[in-house]
Amino acid sequence: MASFDPTPADLFTFGLWTVGNPGRDPFGGPTRPVIDPCDIVEGLAKVGAYGVNFHDDDLVRFGSSAAERDRIVRDFKKALDDHGIVVPMATTNLFGQPIFKDGAFSSSDPRVRAFALAKTMRAMDMGVELGAKTYVFWGGREGTDTDACRDPRTALGWMRECMDFLCEYAVDQGYDLKFALEAKPNEPRGDIYLATTGHMLHFITTLARPEMVGVNPEVAHETMSGLSFVHGVAQAMEQGKLFHIDLNGQKIGRYDQDLRFGSEDLKQAFLLVRLLEGTAGGERYTGPRHFDAHAYRTEDRAGVWEFARGCMRTYKILAERARAFDADPEVQAIVKERKDATCDSLLGGYSAEKVKGLKALELDVEAIGVEGLGYERLDQILTEHLMGAR
Amino acid sequence: MASFDPTPADLFTFGLWTVGNPGRDPFGGPTRPVIDPCDIVEGLAKVGAYGVNFHDDDLVRFGSSAAERDRIVRDFKKALDDHGIVVPMATTNLFGQPIFKDGAFSSSDPRVRAFALAKTMRAMDMGVELGAKTYVFWGGREGTDTDACRDPRTALGWMRECMDFLCEYAVDQGYDLKFALEAKPNEPRGDIYLATTGHMLHFITTLARPEMVGVNPEVAHETMSGLSFVHGVAQAMEQGKLFHIDLNGQKIGRYDQDLRFGSEDLKQAFLLVRLLEGTAGGERYTGPRHFDAHAYRTEDRAGVWEFARGCMRTYKILAERARAFDADPEVQAIVKERKDATCDSLLGGYSAEKVKGLKALELDVEAIGVEGLGYERLDQILTEHLMGAR
Amino acid sequence: MASFDPTPADLFTFGLWTVGNPGRDPFGGPTRPVIDPCDIVEGLAKVGAYGVNFHDDDLVRFGSSAAERDRIVRDFKKALDDHGIVVPMATTNLFGQPIFKDGAFSSSDPRVRAFALAKTMRAMDMGVELGAKTYVFWGGREGTDTDACRDPRTALGWMRECMDFLCEYAVDQGYDLKFALEAKPNEPRGDIYLATTGHMLHFITTLARPEMVGVNPEVAHETMSGLSFVHGVAQAMEQGKLFHIDLNGQKIGRYDQDLRFGSEDLKQAFLLVRLLEGTAGGERYTGPRHFDAHAYRTEDRAGVWEFARGCMRTYKILAERARAFDADPEVQAIVKERKDATCDSLLGGYSAEKVKGLKALELDVEAIGVEGLGYERLDQILTEHLMGAR
Amino acid sequence: MASFDPTPADLFTFGLWTVGNPGRDPFGGPTRPVIDPCDIVEGLAKVGAYGVNFHDDDLVRFGSSAAERDRIVRDFKKALDDHGIVVPMATTNLFGQPIFKDGAFSSSDPRVRAFALAKTMRAMDMGVELGAKTYVFWGGREGTDTDACRDPRTALGWMRECMDFLCEYAVDQGYDLKFALEAKPNEPRGDIYLATTGHMLHFITTLARPEMVGVNPEVAHETMSGLSFVHGVAQAMEQGKLFHIDLNGQKIGRYDQDLRFGSEDLKQAFLLVRLLEGTAGGERYTGPRHFDAHAYRTEDRAGVWEFARGCMRTYKILAERARAFDADPEVQAIVKERKDATCDSLLGGYSAEKVKGLKALELDVEAIGVEGLGYERLDQILTEHLMGAR
Repeated sequence: MASFDPTPADLFTFGLWTVGNPGRDPFGGPTRPVIDPCDIVEGLAKVGAYGVNFHDDDLVRFGSSAAERDRIVRDFKKALDDHGIVVPMATTNLFGQPIFKDGAFSSSDPRVRAFALAKTMRAMDMGVELGAKTYVFWGGREGTDTDACRDPRTALGWMRECMDFLCEYAVDQGYDLKFALEAKPNEPRGDIYLATTGHMLHFITTLARPEMVGVNPEVAHETMSGLSFVHGVAQAMEQGKLFHIDLNGQKIGRYDQDLRFGSEDLKQAFLLVRLLEGTAGGERYTGPRHFDAHAYRTEDRAGVWEFARGCMRTYKILAERARAFDADPEVQAIVKERKDATCDSLLGGYSAEKVKGLKALELDVEAIGVEGLGYERLDQILTEHLMGAR
Repeated sequence: MASFDPTPADLFTFGLWTVGNPGRDPFGGPTRPVIDPCDIVEGLAKVGAYGVNFHDDDLVRFGSSAAERDRIVRDFKKALDDHGIVVPMATTNLFGQPIFKDGAFSSSDPRVRAFALAKTMRAMDMGVELGAKTYVFWGGREGTDTDACRDPRTALGWMRECMDFLCEYAVDQGYDLKFALEAKPNEPRGDIYLATTGHMLHFITTLARPEMVGVNPEVAHETMSGLSFVHGVAQAMEQGKLFHIDLNGQKIGRYDQDLRFGSEDLKQAFLLVRLLEGTAGGERYTGPRHFDAHAYRTEDRAGVWEFARGCMRTYKILAERARAFDADPEVQAIVKERKDATCDSLLGGYSAEKVKGLKALELDVEAIGVEGLGYERLDQILTEHLMGAR
Repeated sequence: MASFDPTPADLFTFGLWTVGNPGRDPFGGPTRPVIDPCDIVEGLAKVGAYGVNFHDDDLVRFGSSAAERDRIVRDFKKALDDHGIVVPMATTNLFGQPIFKDGAFSSSDPRVRAFALAKTMRAMDMGVELGAKTYVFWGGREGTDTDACRDPRTALGWMRECMDFLCEYAVDQGYDLKFALEAKPNEPRGDIYLATTGHMLHFITTLARPEMVGVNPEVAHETMSGLSFVHGVAQAMEQGKLFHIDLNGQKIGRYDQDLRFGSEDLKQAFLLVRLLEGTAGGERYTGPRHFDAHAYRTEDRAGVWEFARGCMRTYKILAERARAFDADPEVQAIVKERKDATCDSLLGGYSAEKVKGLKALELDVEAIGVEGLGYERLDQILTEHLMGAR
Repeated sequence: MASFDPTPADLFTFGLWTVGNPGRDPFGGPTRPVIDPCDIVEGLAKVGAYGVNFHDDDLVRFGSSAAERDRIVRDFKKALDDHGIVVPMATTNLFGQPIFKDGAFSSSDPRVRAFALAKTMRAMDMGVELGAKTYVFWGGREGTDTDACRDPRTALGWMRECMDFLCEYAVDQGYDLKFALEAKPNEPRGDIYLATTGHMLHFITTLARPEMVGVNPEVAHETMSGLSFVHGVAQAMEQGKLFHIDLNGQKIGRYDQDLRFGSEDLKQAFLLVRLLEGTAGGERYTGPRHFDAHAYRTEDRAGVWEFARGCMRTYKILAERARAFDADPEVQAIVKERKDATCDSLLGGYSAEKVKGLKALELDVEAIGVEGLGYERLDQILTEHLMGAR
C-alpha cells in the first residue's frame, strides 16, 4: 500500500534522541550503538521524514568546547542541506546531568537555576542557528520526591521567573521563536509540577508574554494519568495554543513507554489524527507531526528504521480512515447539529429577557430523557472504519 | 459485510443483565425500561446470538414465591424453545441485597454465609433445570473497605469451605456442572479477595475438588488493574482451566465500564481473539463467547440491540484479521521457532550431564545481545492487519 | 484526646448528600434509610460541624411544586437557625435525571442546555436565599462515552457560553456569589471535559468574568488520575483561585470512592492540611473545610456520625502534626532558603546585563551535582511526625 | 525514641543493589559513586541490619575471571565475618546484559535459555557458598513488548522447564535452599508473565517440586497494579508459601519507585506489618524483613544511610502501633468472632442434612441487611493509632 508511504509533505519529524535511542533502560545497558547525528539525518531522509529535532546535548555532548560545538553544528548543517531535512524544533536537556537532580528552573538552589538559564539560552542560540522556529520546554525533573522539600507555590514562582526571562531573551535577540511547554505527571520524579497540558495552559496565562507560549502535549505523558489526550489537545487548539505535538504510544498507569505511534490505543490515535487533520470540520493543525518515541530494546538499527516507518504509515492510514469515517452519511446523520427554535433563541449571550424565557420554559423532561442518541451505533461504525471493515 | 453477521454457530451469548441493563449508574437513575426476560430471548435470537445467561435474581425477582418462580421458569423455558436459544451458564446474585453488604461466602457473619449457600444451591437448581452446564461465581462483594475488619486468611478459609460445600452439592445432586470463578480487583468494595485470574487459579488448587473448578476471566476486571488479559487467559488455558470467558471493553484504572467488546484496546482484543481462536497454533477455546457488557446510558432499546450486534461483529472481524495475520508469511518468518543444536540438547529434563554441558557452554554473549529480533516490524504488521490495511 | 474534637470555629462542613448518603452503589440498593435534611442539620450541629451544603435536589425533590419548595426551604431555614448551622455553599444537580444522560451545559441538545441553565438559576436563587456565598459547578456528566459524538472544542464553547450567562445572571441579580468549578477525570462518563483542576484553571481564564470564578478541587477526583493533589491545590492558591475545597479519601486508579478524609494516603492528607493551614509559611486557606465523602455501605446511622467525626478529628490531628513538623528545627535547617550572592543577582527580572553574567557564569557543575540534599532525612522526619513518634 | 532503633534481632536485611544504588534513572546518570560491597557490609552493621543479599553481578562484575571471583568472594566473606552480617538470600541478575533483552527463561532463543540456566547455577553455587538459604527468582524481563512474538503458553512452558531443572540441580547438589519467586506486572517490558503474586502461586503448583518453591512478594510490584498487597501476602501465608518478602514504598500506577519503606501508603504498610508480626492473632512471619528500596537520587552517601535507618525505624514504629491497635478493647469488640448457633451448625463440611437445613433456613434478611458493622469507627481507631493519637 504505497499510498501510505511517508513524504516530506506530510511534515513528519523525529528527535535525534528517538531514532538515536540506544536501548538503555533502568534495568539494563544499551543494546544498540549510538548513531552519529549526521547519519540519523541521512536515515530520516531515506524513510521520508520532513525534519529532525534535538536537545542541545543530543547534538553537542555536554562539556564540549566551543570549537567542537562549532564543528559539530557545521557538519550537522551540511547533513541537513545534503538530505533536505529541516530543524523545526529544538529543546534543552535540563535533566541528564546530576546538577539537575532536584530540578532546573524549580530547583531550590539558585546556582542550579542560573545554570539552567544559561544552558537554555545557549541551546536556544544553537537551535535558532539551525533553523528552529519552535522551542520546547520539558521540565523533566521540575518536581519532587518528597513534597516537604519546598512549597509548590515557590517552585511555580521560580519557573515563571525563568520562563519570563527566556521570553525576553528571545525577543531581545530578535529570534523568531515560539515556546511550547510540555507536561508530564511523574517519572523520573515522584510528582512533576504542572502535571498535565491543562495545568500548563493555565500557567501560560500567568506569564508576562503569554502570546509567545503554547503547549507541546505528548500522547504518552497524558496517557500515563489515564486522561483523554484528545480532550487536552482540543482544549489547547480551541485557544490557539497547540504549538507542537509529540506523538507516540503508551498504556495507562505505566512507566513512560514512548512506543511506536498507534501501537497502543488505536482508537485514541484515530480520534487524535481526526482532530489534527480536521476531517470532522474543526480547524486543522498545520505544524510538524513529531514522533517522540523509540524502538523496542530488542531491535537493531534496521528495526529502528522499521519503527520510524511504522509511526508514519500508521498516521497516514489513520488519516485515511478518519476521512472515510467523517464522509460516512450514517455518521453525519448521527452527529449533525441539533436544532430547537425555542431553546436556540434562549441560549447564547445573556439578557434578562432570556432569563425570563428560560425560567418559563416548559419541556417534556421525561420524553427527552428516554430519547436514544445512537452513540453505540456511531462508535461501532468508528470501530469498523478503524479496522477497514466498512 | 454480511460475512461478519453473527449466527448461533459462533456461540455468542449474553447475560440477561447485559442487554437488559436499564442504564442506571451511581449518579443517575435508569434511562431505559426493564425488559422482560422472554423478550430478551426473542431479541437475542433476532440478532443471531446462541445463548443467554442469568443470575437467579435476573430471572426471578428476589423474594418471589415458589409458585411465581415456577411460572417464570416455565415461561422462560418456552421462550428459549420458541427462539432456539440455550442457557449455557448460570450464576448467583450474591451482591445486590443489603444482607451481602460485607460479602457473602467471606462475610464475618455466619448467618450471611449460610444464607449465601442456600441461595446459591437454589440458583444452581434453577440453572441446571434450564440447561446450564457452567456455573459462574463472581464474588462481587467478597472483600473489604477497611482491612482491619478481618484477617484475609480467615476470609479465604470461609470461601474455600463454601466452594467445597457447593462442589459436593453438585456431585451429590448428580449435576453435570463445572464451576468457573471470576476475579475482580475492586469495586464495589475497596479491595476484593482473589483479585485476579492468577489468584483464582491458585485458590482453585487448594480446593477439595480442583478438577471441577476453573476460571471465568473478564476483560474489564483484569484490565482495571492494567494487567495483560491475554497473559492471564493463556495461563488458564495452559492448565486446561478456561471454563468460561467474559468479553467486554474497559480502560485501565477506571470504574468497571463493561463497554461493548472491542470498543477499547482493540489490539488487546485482537490478541485475545487470536488466542481463543487458536489461529497461531495453540489449542482453541471451544466454549461460549459471552459478552458481559451493556450499552451506554444514552441508548434506547434500539441502541441496545446495535450494541449487541456490535460486540459480535467486532469479534468476527477480529477473528478474520487474526487468521490473515497468522497466515502472513512475513509474520511466520519472524515468529518461527529458533533452533540451536547444542543448546537445544542441553535444555529440557534435568541431568548431571546437562549441568556439565551448560557450565562449559561458551557463547558469544555480546553478539547474541545485539541481534535484532524484528519485533517492531512484527508489531507494525499486526497493526496494519488490524486496520485492514495489508 | 478531646482537643481534637471539632467545633464550629474549625469551619468544617458536610453536604446533605454525604452524611445523608443511603449506601447505594452500582451493584446494590440502599442499606440505610434516607434522612430528612432537617435531621441532618441537627446531627451536624451535634458532632461540631459549622455548615451544610446541598444540591437543589438534595433539599427539594426534583419535580416538587413551588409550594412544596417554599415549605421545605422555610423548614430548613428554621432547622439551620435552631442549630446554629450555616449554608456556605450550594450547587446544582445536573446529573441525576435521564435528561442529563449526555451532559448538561455540553449536551449536543439545545433543549438540555436550556433546561440546565434554568435549573441552575433556580438553584442559585435557592442557594442565595439560604445564605450560600459560594456556588459550585460539578459537571458530573459533561463528557463522552464515545468521542466521535461531538467535537470537544464545540463542547467547551457551549460550557463557556453557559458559565458566562450564569455569571451575568448572578451580577444582574445582585447576588454576592463566587463560582467554584470542580473537575473530575471520568465516571460516570468515559471521559469528562476539563479533567483536572489544571484544565479548569485554564478554562476560567477564558471566561468573560474570570475574577468571579475559581476552583473547588476534590481529593478523590484528582487522585483517581494519580495526580498530586497538593500540587494542583497549590497552583490554584498561588493565583488566588482556591474558592472552595472537597476533602475525602481515594485510592489511585479506582472508581470514585469518596472515603472518610485521611483514610487513604495519610501523607498526602498531611501535606494538604499543612498547605491549607499555612504552617510552612505560605498563605493560609480561610474558607470552609468541606468533606465530600460518605460512610461505608456497611454502616447504620450511628456509623455515619462516627464517619463524620472521624473526618474532622483526622483533619485536626494532621493540623497538629503539621505545626509540630514545621516547628522542628531539623526540618527548618533542611528546607531553609539557599542563598548564593552571585547567582541570586543574576536571577529575577530580565536584563541584557544578566544575560552576559549568566553566559559567563562558571560553576563547579560536578561538585554541585554530588551534594546531598538531605531529603530522605526530611521525609523520614515527616513520617515520624505523622505517626506521632517524634 | 531509641526503642525504635534497629538491632540484628529484628532480622532487617538490604540488598547490595539497594544501599549501593548509585542514583541512575532513565533520564540521568549516577549521582553517587559505586560503593564497594565490603563497605556496604560495614555500613549495614553500623545501622543495625542483620543481613545482606545480592545478585551475582552485584558482587562479582559480569565477565570477571574465576580468580577474580574467588578473591572477591573471599574478601566479602571476611567482611561479613568482621561485621557480623549474614547472607540470607541470593539471586541472579538475568536482566542487565543485552543478551537478556527478550527474557531469560522465557526467551524464544534456546541459546539465551541455556545461558540463563548456566548463569543461575553458578550464582546459586556462590550464594550457597556465602550462606544463602533462600534463592530469589525475579524474572525482570520475562515478558513482551509485543505479544505477537510468542504464545504465552509456550513461554510458561519454558519457564517451568527451567524452574524444574534448577530445583533438581539444588537437590542434586545437596543445597539447603528454597526458591522464592517474585512477580512484577510490567517494566522494563510492556507486560511481564506471571504478573502478580497470585499468578506466581498458581505457577508454583504446576512445578515438579512445588514444596521447594514459594513467593517473594514486593510491595512496589503489586502496588504498581493497585492490588492489595496485604491480600496477596495473606494468600501466600495461608498456604505456607511466604518464603521471603521485599519491603519498600510505591504509588499506584507509576514506574517502579522502590521508595523508602513506609514513605507511601502508610496504612497499607501498617496493615502489612500487622500481618507479618501476627499481632491480630494469625501466624507470624519469621523470615528476614528485606528492604528492596533505594535512596532518592538527590542523596549522597550520608543520605543513603538515613534512608536505610528510616526503613527500619518505620517498620518498628508500625509494629508498635499494630500491637497497640490489636490490644485496644474497642477494636477487639468490633472484630470479635460472630456466633450463631443455628447457622454455625449448618456451615463447615458438606452433608445432605446440612443442605436440608440450609434450604429450610428462615432468616430476617432485611433486619440483617440494616445492622451497622462499626467499620467506620474501626478504621478511624486504626487511623488514630497509626498517627499515635490514641
